[in-house]
Amino acid sequence: MKLLLLSNSTMAGKPFLGWPKEYLKSFIGDASKKLLFIPYAGVNVYWDGYAKKVSKYFEEFGYETISIYKQQDPVKAIREADSIMVGGGNTFHLVYHLHKNELIPLIRQAVLDGKPYIGWSAGANVACPTLCTTNDMPIIQPESFDTFNLVQFQINPHYLDANPEGHGGETREDRINEFLEINREKVVLGLREGTGLWIEDDNIKLIGNKTARFFQYGKEPKELDDRKARDKLVISDIS
Amino acid sequence: MKLLLLSNSTMAGKPFLGWPKEYLKSFIGDASKKLLFIPYAGVNVYWDGYAKKVSKYFEEFGYETISIYKQQDPVKAIREADSIMVGGGNTFHLVYHLHKNELIPLIRQAVLDGKPYIGWSAGANVACPTLCTTNDMPIIQPESFDTFNLVQFQINPHYLDANPEGHGGETREDRINEFLEINREKVVLGLREGTGLWIEDDNIKLIGNKTARFFQYGKEPKELDDRKARDKLVISDIS
Repeated sequence: MKLLLLSNSTMAGKPFLGWPKEYLKSFIGDASKKLLFIPYAGVNVYWDGYAKKVSKYFEEFGYETISIYKQQDPVKAIREADSIMVGGGNTFHLVYHLHKNELIPLIRQAVLDGKPYIGWSAGANVACPTLCTTNDMPIIQPESFDTFNLVQFQINPHYLDANPEGHGGETREDRINEFLEINREKVVLGLREGTGLWIEDDNIKLIGNKTARFFQYGKEPKELDDRKARDKLVISDIS
Repeated sequence: MKLLLLSNSTMAGKPFLGWPKEYLKSFIGDASKKLLFIPYAGVNVYWDGYAKKVSKYFEEFGYETISIYKQQDPVKAIREADSIMVGGGNTFHLVYHLHKNELIPLIRQAVLDGKPYIGWSAGANVACPTLCTTNDMPIIQPESFDTFNLVQFQINPHYLDANPEGHGGETREDRINEFLEINREKVVLGLREGTGLWIEDDNIKLIGNKTARFFQYGKEPKELDDRKARDKLVISDIS
């Protein structure tokens, strides 16, 4: 199983998928490749516009991108793709359409069978067992909160340490602790913007320039860092 | 129908339910009153602790507070209460337990029949048709996103104008616009912290020291303000 899960696509003021460019190229590989794009998290950008933007970005590397919502036969489209790529946007919108189009078991099985999976933001979140650690607004009710269940932990993308000054709402850490309070057997990895996970079977590498914050019920959160060693995180920490 | 819907309970660094104290007293009234409290949004605070804190706060005014989760007969508890009060916390947790305990139709009918309703944060959100404009993390999957449907608009509590600096995520306005994109017939009122709505039938008064931001599909958002006139918002704006 091979997954590239990115906290976010775009750093404030920087180009779309700018920061993870080299990771994406190296993850997908050099040969001419066919990418199957899932744009269902797109709301205001619409799917056509979103697909076009993503397609243009990957053309530079010599990759061809096709979009799931234009395929008559999704089983064939998944089989023929070299990688599956799930874009960010609104997680509820994404999960609503994944369930509506009965794609969860199909994509899950393809990835378990070795098809590489790339996801950013909402697309990284849905690689987890559920959408329960999203930051997004529940603008539409999906059939279920269950997602691809490819990793055993929950990702909180766009992880943020503090609240805007003078704002009384919960911090991200408060929210994750609420999740753990009623899901005590689960663990959560807060991925700060500009970071991601490169996963090959049991080998999980943190990429980017920041540490990740790891939460378990009843324990102090800890900062995970493998930027120096560039080897795997201690897998027992997050599985 | 009589509703007091508050954006938030607590301003940063201030005491619990400090800012709306006079509004609460005047809304509930002078005589000794019995309040039925719904603490289901409480997660980390637990219901006992939450109920105790709320009960202590209202004791000062001479009110008695009972908690729904301790009642064998919720129909009787609702009937005998002078007001129903729904506290803030996690909206998904609140809505999960409202559905699980089959309280939505019971409380809705009581309020339509004249029982005053007080809600802060999540408790204000659930007075709306759905939970779809909450800011909370979906830590648990409720049976449905449907809520009390007492007002015809959606409230976004803790409405916030900007994001923390350098953060690439959506602003609150972006999120609300995404909601409107796929719910074009709905309207949303962003209630900033320290504000609320005092509703008596069709008369809707904005309380607190800030304007409220009103969103409709395809139109520029506008700032609603009746702090000077102290009369009702133009009801046609938000219904």
